[in-house]
Amino acid sequence: MKNISILGSTGSIGQSTLAVVEKYPDRFKVVGLAAGNNIDILEQQVRKFRPSLVSVISPTSAEKLKQRCADLRVVILSGVEGMVQVAAMDEADITVSAIVGTAGLVPTMAAIHAKKTIALANKEVLVTAGELVMAECKSRGVKLLPVDSEHSAIFQCLHAGANQDIRKLIVTASGGPFRTFAKKDLEQVTLAQALKHPNWSMGRKITIDSATLMNKGLEVIEARWLFGFRPEMIKVLVHPQSIIHSMVEYTDGAVVAQLGMPDMKGPIAYALSYPERLNDVSPALDLAAIGTLTFEEPDMERFPCLAYAYDALQAGGSMPAVLSAANEVAVKCFLEEKIRYVDVARVIRSVMDAHRPFSITTVEDALKADLWARVEAERVIEGGKLGS
Amino acid sequence: MKNISILGSTGSIGQSTLAVVEKYPDRFKVVGLAAGNNIDILEQQVRKFRPSLVSVISPTSAEKLKQRCADLRVVILSGVEGMVQVAAMDEADITVSAIVGTAGLVPTMAAIHAKKTIALANKEVLVTAGELVMAECKSRGVKLLPVDSEHSAIFQCLHAGANQDIRKLIVTASGGPFRTFAKKDLEQVTLAQALKHPNWSMGRKITIDSATLMNKGLEVIEARWLFGFRPEMIKVLVHPQSIIHSMVEYTDGAVVAQLGMPDMKGPIAYALSYPERLNDVSPALDLAAIGTLTFEEPDMERFPCLAYAYDALQAGGSMPAVLSAANEVAVKCFLEEKIRYVDVARVIRSVMDAHRPFSITTVEDALKADLWARVEAERVIEGGKLGS
Repeated sequence: MKNISILGSTGSIGQSTLAVVEKYPDRFKVVGLAAGNNIDILEQQVRKFRPSLVSVISPTSAEKLKQRCADLRVVILSGVEGMVQVAAMDEADITVSAIVGTAGLVPTMAAIHAKKTIALANKEVLVTAGELVMAECKSRGVKLLPVDSEHSAIFQCLHAGANQDIRKLIVTASGGPFRTFAKKDLEQVTLAQALKHPNWSMGRKITIDSATLMNKGLEVIEARWLFGFRPEMIKVLVHPQSIIHSMVEYTDGAVVAQLGMPDMKGPIAYALSYPERLNDVSPALDLAAIGTLTFEEPDMERFPCLAYAYDALQAGGSMPAVLSAANEVAVKCFLEEKIRYVDVARVIRSVMDAHRPFSITTVEDALKADLWARVEAERVIEGGKLGS
Repeated sequence: MKNISILGSTGSIGQSTLAVVEKYPDRFKVVGLAAGNNIDILEQQVRKFRPSLVSVISPTSAEKLKQRCADLRVVILSGVEGMVQVAAMDEADITVSAIVGTAGLVPTMAAIHAKKTIALANKEVLVTAGELVMAECKSRGVKLLPVDSEHSAIFQCLHAGANQDIRKLIVTASGGPFRTFAKKDLEQVTLAQALKHPNWSMGRKITIDSATLMNKGLEVIEARWLFGFRPEMIKVLVHPQSIIHSMVEYTDGAVVAQLGMPDMKGPIAYALSYPERLNDVSPALDLAAIGTLTFEEPDMERFPCLAYAYDALQAGGSMPAVLSAANEVAVKCFLEEKIRYVDVARVIRSVMDAHRPFSITTVEDALKADLWARVEAERVIEGGKLGS
């Protein structure tokens, strides 16, 4: 029996994690849940899974939830301090880090300091402070297991050989809903179009990131730290069917790939049960029924966010944190229809161009870079300084 | 430095093995070669690789080779006894078993008894006596490493999980040159058509086996013993591009696949260097350039040899040996244009129908089944008893 605390339990990954726990009640027990302010869903989760500790963002939400859950034995906290307590609680063996954005960094670090095994779904933790986070994991002997389908795939494929025999990591990308759009047509695309991901059902922010290929850029940065390979060894390959979740190319020319139906429960369950595998987590893959898998090179001209991610890795230090924070602000504005699809990349480029990267040696450094980029991105957007 | 003896050095796999050895002279040294009667090629190999022991089939060939190699320090033997001595020679660390057909069984068993690591390219060793051979390997602590690209792929994919978490082995098949032929058109196909394999450059016997899908049937039987899974867990999937070399489906729904350009040097080098991998063995795979991979279910009605292989596994005992021996005779007659393509399956079916399977507990049992099936197959062919 593994005890699990979940950061971001009401989000897409959080709910899928709970679906996995529910399916394997003899394997997993939920001990802690942290969420935003969606207390309707959270209350249901608390009633069903009976965690001993719960946290929400605002004290007001905490009060409301306390009243609703007065009949239950559960401690309800709020704010960053509450999240940190859920992340690091004594009873937990595994902390699932599934809070979207830089907000996940502090509680994830708290879980690492408390020597929890981390099931990492939050991309920004490694994007903003990857070198620091991996060093902390190493010095404390903490296992960091990927929950992203691509990184889970690579992690599985890495078992087929030794690290010194690896030539490339190949991160696959669906290409998003605009894969076949001409550059000029991208100027006209709507929010509704961007929110229609061809293969995966995900949260809104990550769906937009998939439409800009920034999601893939963040994954490249994440892979760079998670697996410790140089950026030039990490390639992106567009594979519209999202059946091959990623690959590892070995020095002898052999490529090992992990495939499956697009379903987040697969990588979530794998991270929770590793090194074992559970039965019947994802629907069986029927390649004969699917028939055809296709592949193409990513087009960094039409999807410049991917190029910017490589640029940020190249620049190093705080630049990936700045890329990610600028992207968060830009995507939020796009979701609010304050800017257009193509403006997302322009905001990020402007913010990166204005940034002088510095070293990230503490969480505070990462948060400082993050905050600077947010302010700068707001300034770029409010100032209407978007070029074309 | 690993010392290698090669059984079947002048054949397709033997020559590819020597190409690998030649490329990595600081890793491998050839100490023994056994071949048929192609002493022109064998003499060149002896001059280049300087083995201390060589064997050919006939005493006459041995005498000729001795005269030609009089200037070299090499012992030249002949017959089964010579093959066995090469297979089991003291200096060898690895014995590459690449003699085609049942002829490979006795020397491979000799290598197992001498506790050599076996790089197995011969299919019939496991098809005719798989249970016995694996038991011998187990009791003597001998590693049996696959050289077939499909089994090498599965072997690599098995590293991604524990055996108890495996649901299926998926052996891919190109489908051969007649994949799209209607059943009635198969009656008319010629030897020249059957010898044109779409993807792989191989020996003539295995090329015909690919055209009938018997090759895949033999691989299913081989996989059954090599990896120890029940026959119903081993599936065949047609994949005309031969880029995915095979797959393993885990209980959680994850599928792990090994991909690469079709090139036998990959699996050969992997078996020789395992658990390490060598650099730049096979050409790099460029999936974006390949563009499309397709998949379909195998059609056992048009390609009954595949169904017969499952039937033989089901019947057990000597039946797989009989299947394989009847196939060898039938393919030989087809290569000599004595029978038609469709007759190959009919010969095998007739021979299997006439066989009462018995247990294989010794090599002699396997050879007895083999001989019986050969005589019966000749009888079927000579007697013109082929139905339609």
